[in-house]
Amino acid sequence: MIPVNPDRFLADLHELRAIGASGIGKGVVRPAFSRADIEARQWLGARMAQAGLLVEIDPVGSVWGLAQAEKSLLIGSHSDTQPEGGWLDGALGVIAGLEIARASIEAGGPPVSAVSFQDEEGRFGVTTGSTIWSGGLSLETADDLTDRDMISFAQARGAMAHLVTGPFVDPARFSGFLEMHIEQGPWLDQAGEAAAVVSDIVGIRDMRITFEGQQNHAGTTPMHLRRDAFQALGAFNARLAERLRNVVTPQTVWTIGHVNLSPNAHSVVPGKAVFSMQWRDGDAARLARMEEIIRETASEIAQEHGMGLGYSSMLGLEPVPMDAAMRAALEAAATEHAAGRWRNLQSGALHDAANLSRLMPVGMLFVPSIDGISHAFEEDTRDEDLTRGLHILAGAASRIAPKGGQAARS
Amino acid sequence: MIPVNPDRFLADLHELRAIGASGIGKGVVRPAFSRADIEARQWLGARMAQAGLLVEIDPVGSVWGLAQAEKSLLIGSHSDTQPEGGWLDGALGVIAGLEIARASIEAGGPPVSAVSFQDEEGRFGVTTGSTIWSGGLSLETADDLTDRDMISFAQARGAMAHLVTGPFVDPARFSGFLEMHIEQGPWLDQAGEAAAVVSDIVGIRDMRITFEGQQNHAGTTPMHLRRDAFQALGAFNARLAERLRNVVTPQTVWTIGHVNLSPNAHSVVPGKAVFSMQWRDGDAARLARMEEIIRETASEIAQEHGMGLGYSSMLGLEPVPMDAAMRAALEAAATEHAAGRWRNLQSGALHDAANLSRLMPVGMLFVPSIDGISHAFEEDTRDEDLTRGLHILAGAASRIAPKGGQAARS
Repeated sequence: MIPVNPDRFLADLHELRAIGASGIGKGVVRPAFSRADIEARQWLGARMAQAGLLVEIDPVGSVWGLAQAEKSLLIGSHSDTQPEGGWLDGALGVIAGLEIARASIEAGGPPVSAVSFQDEEGRFGVTTGSTIWSGGLSLETADDLTDRDMISFAQARGAMAHLVTGPFVDPARFSGFLEMHIEQGPWLDQAGEAAAVVSDIVGIRDMRITFEGQQNHAGTTPMHLRRDAFQALGAFNARLAERLRNVVTPQTVWTIGHVNLSPNAHSVVPGKAVFSMQWRDGDAARLARMEEIIRETASEIAQEHGMGLGYSSMLGLEPVPMDAAMRAALEAAATEHAAGRWRNLQSGALHDAANLSRLMPVGMLFVPSIDGISHAFEEDTRDEDLTRGLHILAGAASRIAPKGGQAARS
Repeated sequence: MIPVNPDRFLADLHELRAIGASGIGKGVVRPAFSRADIEARQWLGARMAQAGLLVEIDPVGSVWGLAQAEKSLLIGSHSDTQPEGGWLDGALGVIAGLEIARASIEAGGPPVSAVSFQDEEGRFGVTTGSTIWSGGLSLETADDLTDRDMISFAQARGAMAHLVTGPFVDPARFSGFLEMHIEQGPWLDQAGEAAAVVSDIVGIRDMRITFEGQQNHAGTTPMHLRRDAFQALGAFNARLAERLRNVVTPQTVWTIGHVNLSPNAHSVVPGKAVFSMQWRDGDAARLARMEEIIRETASEIAQEHGMGLGYSSMLGLEPVPMDAAMRAALEAAATEHAAGRWRNLQSGALHDAANLSRLMPVGMLFVPSIDGISHAFEEDTRDEDLTRGLHILAGAASRIAPKGGQAARS
């Protein structure tokens, strides 16, 4: 067993929280490459060095604390936050990695490395740092990405250029990746459970749909002659809910989160509605079946309402199953530390682990989010759930990390 | 009978159309106080003067051609257009007024004056010129109104200041007001009918409704725990249509033309939906009953979906019945010129006549709009429908104008 120190772990979590603290509850404002984010990454590097890890900061600003071994188990997450973020989203997994790597060095335990990936929260896309590191995106292409203020990734990472220690870390150094994260959903909190071993990270399908009818005078156009694009959207939304009912599981979600009417005026029958259609599920076959239903329903509605119908290209992220051996290690540790109080759960959110699965076996552990709240200053988790999660993760690391002790760096 | 000249009338309509012609179909771009609008108003003043009318341009740019008589019948509409307008919306009624006043002078007929009101199309509101003239809005208040580019009404009318001939024309000069307009709707065209005598201009109710739910992660928030403001809007829209079914007439309309979701992002369950709710009907009691149903339905949906519910203040324009004697004169003339091919119709659109009803008896005549299209370059009406409309309007003017001939100005 790696003898982690829960008090030190909580103290570090709170020290990290103070960097970029919003002053509202425990909230944090630490978006990627902000001054607070860079300061947090420097603080983390110093902590890793104190622990006896070899610190590297790669070209995109991901911070690594490397064990002195040919192969080590990598544990981490991200320390950047949403523009209005919580104190645990990402930070929890990073400090857990730091504590387990540190405790393992102290105890002469198995080799464990720690990492904080850059821009998981997607100032420049989605899980930018780990996507680049895992080969999902070239640095050259990424450099042209822009944030909503039209600042490029190249420009943003320039702010950390003086801290970069060298090229990207070689993935061959790692035997696998573990990530602990808050659930960001309500299941564990509502059930009063302590943890979840993630079975898979759901796949996502996302596209824009356009209904194009006839813009018209809202006073002189009788109801039965209207080709109202908003009414078509309403009919689509209602029929889709009906149709999906027999196909989905309680974990399946779908969302119309963006709607843009034209001309979007009180006195004009909307001639055009462009809206987002996003759906998530752990099963690729179900995602495909849902796509069929969505397209069939949209076609029917377009015909019935006299609409032109258009689709954007579809973004598709495949479901990522967690590695069986990683899951087994997490489940054994969960049974040891929270018998009868853990479950398996799909992750409805993306995580860095999804990218790393391209390179190595990955496993994920969730701890409860109070009221399921995340991406908000109110985000929180009870101390006992945080430390229990740490013990489970350390237990899994003990079971799965490469064998053999390690020497601390002198 | 006032012996109008249909060829001269059509020729003038086409001359006016050339001022601000869009170059697309018969379309016209002549918004209030644009260079084209001012040029058109100067052209109109010159035509009125040639006809022997006393020309006045009032402080807001409405152009008057006054008969030499203590009392005259006023006929007109507006010569400004939508930013992308048709050639007949407003212009038809103005040139009809010009032709009838001109023909009546030539024939020593009854005193008829002509007018083109300014900004009926609402660059600065709705029916701005006739609202000010009829006392619905003070010039001082109107001067602070701004268009969508934040140009004030005061600033805009400055562009016509050198053309203004004096203060506002005294409404006591007029015995009543007749306005001919295109229908801007499909009823006459679909029925193959020639004209409609307007029974009343519908009333309008317009407000914004807000549903406020819970913004949340679109991946980790299960469907049954969402408080999705767009879903609440969809449910409201569907239930409202059901509920209104037993209350409305085929002329009643309601429209959700504006929708604003927050934060309006693909990956976020919408926490807030602000949308417009507008309804129109000729019967004030029905408008009130619809308001009750709208508020009841919104309350039910808010409760069922866990939404906060808010309303903006409600804009209310009362229905305006046309004057009985004016209607009778128009109906007699319609029977003379289009027996069996005219009907009574509500106007679903606002017109200058609605404002003038505060000051004098008003009547309105509609001619067909091909395919019901208006506020678009494609707007059109057959020549025979235009000239038949002119004959009906002249027939009504003969019946209703103050008695006694008039002398042409020398």
